[in-house]
Amino acid sequence: MIESLSKAARAAGLVLAHASRAQKDDAIEAIAIALLDRQDEILAANVEDILRSRAEGISESLIDRLTLNPSRIAGIAGGARKIKALPDPVGVIKRERTLENGLHFKQVTVPFGVVGMVYEARPNVTVDAAVILLKSGNCALLRGSSSAAQSNEILVSIMRGAVSSVGLPADVIQLVSSANRSSVTELLHARGLVDLVIPRGSAALIRTVVDEAKVPTIETGAGVCHVYVDKDGDLAKALPILINAKCQRPSVCNAAETLLVHEDISEKFLPVALEALDSEKVLIHADSQSLAIAQKLGIDATLAQEDNWSTEYGVLEINVRVVDDVDQAAAHIRKYGTNHTEAIISENPETIERFINQMDAAAIMINASTRFTDGEEMGFGAEIGISNQKTHARGPMGLEEMTTTTWIVTGTGQIRG
Amino acid sequence: MIESLSKAARAAGLVLAHASRAQKDDAIEAIAIALLDRQDEILAANVEDILRSRAEGISESLIDRLTLNPSRIAGIAGGARKIKALPDPVGVIKRERTLENGLHFKQVTVPFGVVGMVYEARPNVTVDAAVILLKSGNCALLRGSSSAAQSNEILVSIMRGAVSSVGLPADVIQLVSSANRSSVTELLHARGLVDLVIPRGSAALIRTVVDEAKVPTIETGAGVCHVYVDKDGDLAKALPILINAKCQRPSVCNAAETLLVHEDISEKFLPVALEALDSEKVLIHADSQSLAIAQKLGIDATLAQEDNWSTEYGVLEINVRVVDDVDQAAAHIRKYGTNHTEAIISENPETIERFINQMDAAAIMINASTRFTDGEEMGFGAEIGISNQKTHARGPMGLEEMTTTTWIVTGTGQIRG
Repeated sequence: MIESLSKAARAAGLVLAHASRAQKDDAIEAIAIALLDRQDEILAANVEDILRSRAEGISESLIDRLTLNPSRIAGIAGGARKIKALPDPVGVIKRERTLENGLHFKQVTVPFGVVGMVYEARPNVTVDAAVILLKSGNCALLRGSSSAAQSNEILVSIMRGAVSSVGLPADVIQLVSSANRSSVTELLHARGLVDLVIPRGSAALIRTVVDEAKVPTIETGAGVCHVYVDKDGDLAKALPILINAKCQRPSVCNAAETLLVHEDISEKFLPVALEALDSEKVLIHADSQSLAIAQKLGIDATLAQEDNWSTEYGVLEINVRVVDDVDQAAAHIRKYGTNHTEAIISENPETIERFINQMDAAAIMINASTRFTDGEEMGFGAEIGISNQKTHARGPMGLEEMTTTTWIVTGTGQIRG
Repeated sequence: MIESLSKAARAAGLVLAHASRAQKDDAIEAIAIALLDRQDEILAANVEDILRSRAEGISESLIDRLTLNPSRIAGIAGGARKIKALPDPVGVIKRERTLENGLHFKQVTVPFGVVGMVYEARPNVTVDAAVILLKSGNCALLRGSSSAAQSNEILVSIMRGAVSSVGLPADVIQLVSSANRSSVTELLHARGLVDLVIPRGSAALIRTVVDEAKVPTIETGAGVCHVYVDKDGDLAKALPILINAKCQRPSVCNAAETLLVHEDISEKFLPVALEALDSEKVLIHADSQSLAIAQKLGIDATLAQEDNWSTEYGVLEINVRVVDDVDQAAAHIRKYGTNHTEAIISENPETIERFINQMDAAAIMINASTRFTDGEEMGFGAEIGISNQKTHARGPMGLEEMTTTTWIVTGTGQIRG
């Protein structure tokens, strides 16, 4: 199946790769208009998905992620228009030089070609990903989850119509059947047919990708993020940052899972912090020292087990540990972290530098919430995922990250000596 | 085994990642001096490798690649000094912005951490790779071939001593045993222990890497490169470019394997081209039209079979085909090529643009030899390999490509709304 989709995409990609910015933007505008115009059809399909998923016993939190409504559809259309407003990432000259022999070297951004997306539940990803890939000149093979099958089908059908309406080939956006799991494996094995696969979703999905992939992939996801409150930290900053990092949206990868507190301020900060976490209904897994403080305050907390330190909760649970100093905090993070986002709260520049130098993370937050590792927040305008790997892209990925390059070398008959 | 090497490398890497340029350059200079000083030991070890390999019946071309001599050692030391002269790729600010909320975002280059190299025969790669990785702040796990075991052992021992002598930890450079094949698999499975593995060598090695890897890898290698001579090509440029691309060093990935000639000039160009190839002792696999021309000239040529078009010969053999126009040339290249380097010989800007727009290659040469896809030639100063993939790096990889990035975000207590 992937082979025929990919062949159609390759043919369409030859046109899309050299489409003008205006033509791509027209296509995106047509998508935004069509989504709003055909909202009733989208909502009807979405209701079918919801009813079926409920009958299958899917959790209410997944149902929430699956659900579309007029305001969410308006949000999706608005997101597409934000991408429309961004500059074209294709054709940008990254490096350029003329050598002594007269050869002119120019490294230019070009689309990857055919990009597969494997994702779960949320149908907004269907449009977000397709539009980012369209703007970056890539053809999208979209493999959403079966729970959103009907929503995704109508969304892709609407987008294909919109793309056609401005004279671009509809096959730049294609839906991969979610009827069985084998289509994921097929995508991951499609050497030469697919240039890149981006998984977005659970740790289990990422694991499948790592185990199965024979095509290039960009891992996204897993985030065991830490907030370290140093002895020289401003506690008036530390508390709101901690609560924001843990509670504002606990299900996402840049939410914090562990609080590390410097010994010297633990008696001062922990009572306040534990009270605040408790009042936000956060379940606390504490080391013995913080557990004693919690118990003194009558706060329900459990003793953290070894497994807790490396768990990405994704819900209102947190680990709390007292550390001797910044080095022990850094060692803890290196041992249990996932190299995603690590925050330090300190007013001491030397300590901050010492912390930075021991991290190996996509992002380091100094006196700011871990939640800022986000494409929109960072001014990318859009995000196709947050890379948790070191090759190609690290951290939030926007349009630029969806391109590769070609060296165009212009000569007048030069040969190599 | 990889686990203990990697742990030692991680510890050493914490120091190396923040070493100053001066300290890294001192280490490289110490390596260059020690290689020259201890040349006799290196040559003695190399002779042992050669004798053992010959007894095992290894081909003379491999023996040649394995062989070191004073001039090659001088070349290796000189290569190291060229890398020393290049700017430090670590700590470079790639993007920087301050948002309205006062948050300052800075994307800074950092080393990968621990990089594995898997390569064959040539012991110069042991030093080239180690020095490039050292300069870019990475620890090297070097897995050369068993045929070069003793040469690699002494080279690594010399480099470790040199690194220590300037106060950096010796474990930034480590040799992985080549006594059995399982160490390659172990490297490729070492999730979390190794940040990147770069294979350099045969198609079989690359295939193993693709099939086995669970860590990020950058594929290098396979190059079925084409030279297309257009009807508007300057034949006085075309002939030397063709001969240079095919014959100057046929074993490398940027050598040409196929000549495509526009129908309209085939009667004029092919007799000259075939004569020249024949006099360079190039075996010709021709389509029926070029075969007829060859036969008329009394040149020995065989009819190309389907398999020939996608074969990377690596020796003095070439495919020759007459095409209707630039579009048929491009379609041929897309079907049989490996997206490495494709050359067009034409004086017609429209045809050149039409050709470029239909390619999907790491490099496109306009009136120049395919052999210019090379880090040194392109002014990178050094090259750890030529990436034949689209993610992370495409084409020659120098120091810059051996880094990843970290976002450093500085705030004053900002939280996300």
